[in-house]
Amino acid sequence: MSRTDTTPRAPAPPDRARVEEAAWWLSDRVVRTPVLNSPAIDRLAGVRVLLKAENLQTGGSYKMRGAMLAVGRLAAAGHTGVVAQSTGNHAVAVALAAARHGLRATVVLPVDAASTKVARARAAGARVVLAGTTLDERLATARQMGDAEGLPLIDAYDHPDVVAGQGTASLELIEEAERLGTPLDALVVPVGGGGGVAGACLAADGRPVDVYGVEPVGCDSLARSLVAGRPTPVAPAPTIADGLRPTCVGELPFAVLRDTVRGVVRVDDDQIAEAFRLLLLDLKVLTEPSGAAGLAGALCLVGEPGADVVGRPGAGAVGRSGRRRADYRTVGVVLTGGNVEADLVARLATRQWEGVAA
Amino acid sequence: MSRTDTTPRAPAPPDRARVEEAAWWLSDRVVRTPVLNSPAIDRLAGVRVLLKAENLQTGGSYKMRGAMLAVGRLAAAGHTGVVAQSTGNHAVAVALAAARHGLRATVVLPVDAASTKVARARAAGARVVLAGTTLDERLATARQMGDAEGLPLIDAYDHPDVVAGQGTASLELIEEAERLGTPLDALVVPVGGGGGVAGACLAADGRPVDVYGVEPVGCDSLARSLVAGRPTPVAPAPTIADGLRPTCVGELPFAVLRDTVRGVVRVDDDQIAEAFRLLLLDLKVLTEPSGAAGLAGALCLVGEPGADVVGRPGAGAVGRSGRRRADYRTVGVVLTGGNVEADLVARLATRQWEGVAA
Repeated sequence: MSRTDTTPRAPAPPDRARVEEAAWWLSDRVVRTPVLNSPAIDRLAGVRVLLKAENLQTGGSYKMRGAMLAVGRLAAAGHTGVVAQSTGNHAVAVALAAARHGLRATVVLPVDAASTKVARARAAGARVVLAGTTLDERLATARQMGDAEGLPLIDAYDHPDVVAGQGTASLELIEEAERLGTPLDALVVPVGGGGGVAGACLAADGRPVDVYGVEPVGCDSLARSLVAGRPTPVAPAPTIADGLRPTCVGELPFAVLRDTVRGVVRVDDDQIAEAFRLLLLDLKVLTEPSGAAGLAGALCLVGEPGADVVGRPGAGAVGRSGRRRADYRTVGVVLTGGNVEADLVARLATRQWEGVAA
Repeated sequence: MSRTDTTPRAPAPPDRARVEEAAWWLSDRVVRTPVLNSPAIDRLAGVRVLLKAENLQTGGSYKMRGAMLAVGRLAAAGHTGVVAQSTGNHAVAVALAAARHGLRATVVLPVDAASTKVARARAAGARVVLAGTTLDERLATARQMGDAEGLPLIDAYDHPDVVAGQGTASLELIEEAERLGTPLDALVVPVGGGGGVAGACLAADGRPVDVYGVEPVGCDSLARSLVAGRPTPVAPAPTIADGLRPTCVGELPFAVLRDTVRGVVRVDDDQIAEAFRLLLLDLKVLTEPSGAAGLAGALCLVGEPGADVVGRPGAGAVGRSGRRRADYRTVGVVLTGGNVEADLVARLATRQWEGVAA
């Protein structure tokens, strides 16, 4: 198949080959975002930090990758419309991907969604439905609409194309680090439903890279699931990282993560806010708080002996990298998105941010 | 000479070959910054806009290019220290370049310099001297210190290495646009002392690209100089673009620009502020107001029949591109820098910015 074919291959259980194939198919359909580096951030971390700027991706987040792949397959199968639900970025991405493929998109967002994300989904031509504030409410609405109108649902993380597509961002970062002569010892990715970090684990398969997820304190379904050995829901605590508040890690991501992820770093909102400021004022890029969480986690991981890191049970003290945390030399971070309200940018930039009301 | 030689060739009058040689020498010494693009900005402009993100350059501005080249040559000639003056970014760049080459740097900034820039110059190990608020005051101090201590002065724009070095950002943008299959019809660069736009003219020499400078209203020394046929000083008006307020375009840049630049676009602070917001919230990169001025100018150039554009006398209605402004298809912009205070970011992001006090 040539790269300009419009048909991605049929679904298969996600694995590294699936991520590599997705990367190839997406290579002229999404932006190859730059890998950035800052001497000041390196000094602060005490290691080299390579940052994959997916906030510069079309649609403002790496969700465009999985959405393009999933919508592309549905379009090739003859579907004329799709439905999706998310707190925002997946909905924006599905709206844009559907527009590219000439499909109608219906996207379900929470009533308290960031207005930036609602506006972007509408600008892409999607029908936007606002439903409740929880995942269950959105999912029920999305399923109901999909059933009524015969539209397939593209889940935000429990979907093989979404896992593989998001994994391509990690694969590009891993390969770019090798090209630069500074291969990654660790790779850090924020966790909502776990699709991105599962994709990262698949991308890193066969390489000496330790993959970590980052969760806000109190939104730590993956950390709890690793300990329990099965997907374990939480009642998500309030956090500034609105994209990292699903009730539970997805079944499919967890099936990948339970045997591959090195661990989970838990970060609080102050750490996320500080990472946001570093990225904005030093690196000069705008991330949303969820998108900055990866850097917050990486700084904890390499900088704080008492950092709140939950290892995967049975993973031992040394992972695939063959190194202990204190010996990492190069750490990769996926800056997953940059869709954030101007008011919040202003408050975070000037440290006039006093947390999220419970 | 191999690219890892530490000796750039001896000075020569700047021309396109000089810019190409500078690009080659700098290629493993500065960041090859990405060329960014936004569907939303393209729609707004009605043309394709390719943005060279030099705000992501080491030191936060494209001044690093000329500074590395000039300091590299002085280091190779056996100097152990250098002196420079600027409103900020050139001083930061010389400080960093000197540190890289093991030279002492003394940099003279105005007493009202952005504290970000003072802090960055100090962090790079430079001795920072604050002197007056005008170019003449800084220049007198810098010359006095240079003479007293036998240190060569690296002028912020009236210097062949600085012109050639800054031109390499434009050359990379021109070449990347060609590689993408969308060669530039026009290239827009903000004007302080004119070093960057002169370098752009040299980089574009022999290609069908119209080069424009952008000046804040009331800081339009280049526009006035083109009309007068000689460098013509102004009493710079207050502007949010603190890097674009020199009293007069440099002699050396003007010698290049008088025969090559297509024209100058004058923009006001509201246009600069709007470009800043677009870059931050849509493109997701942080620029300083001076760094956003290029986009403000480009949007005027292609979007407004009544835009305040001063053509070079004798240039006629059609330039090197062979196109009238209304027929441009692809316009390049150099985002020259991103060093800006958090407070100003917050005020600009939320439109709570009421102009600069006179």
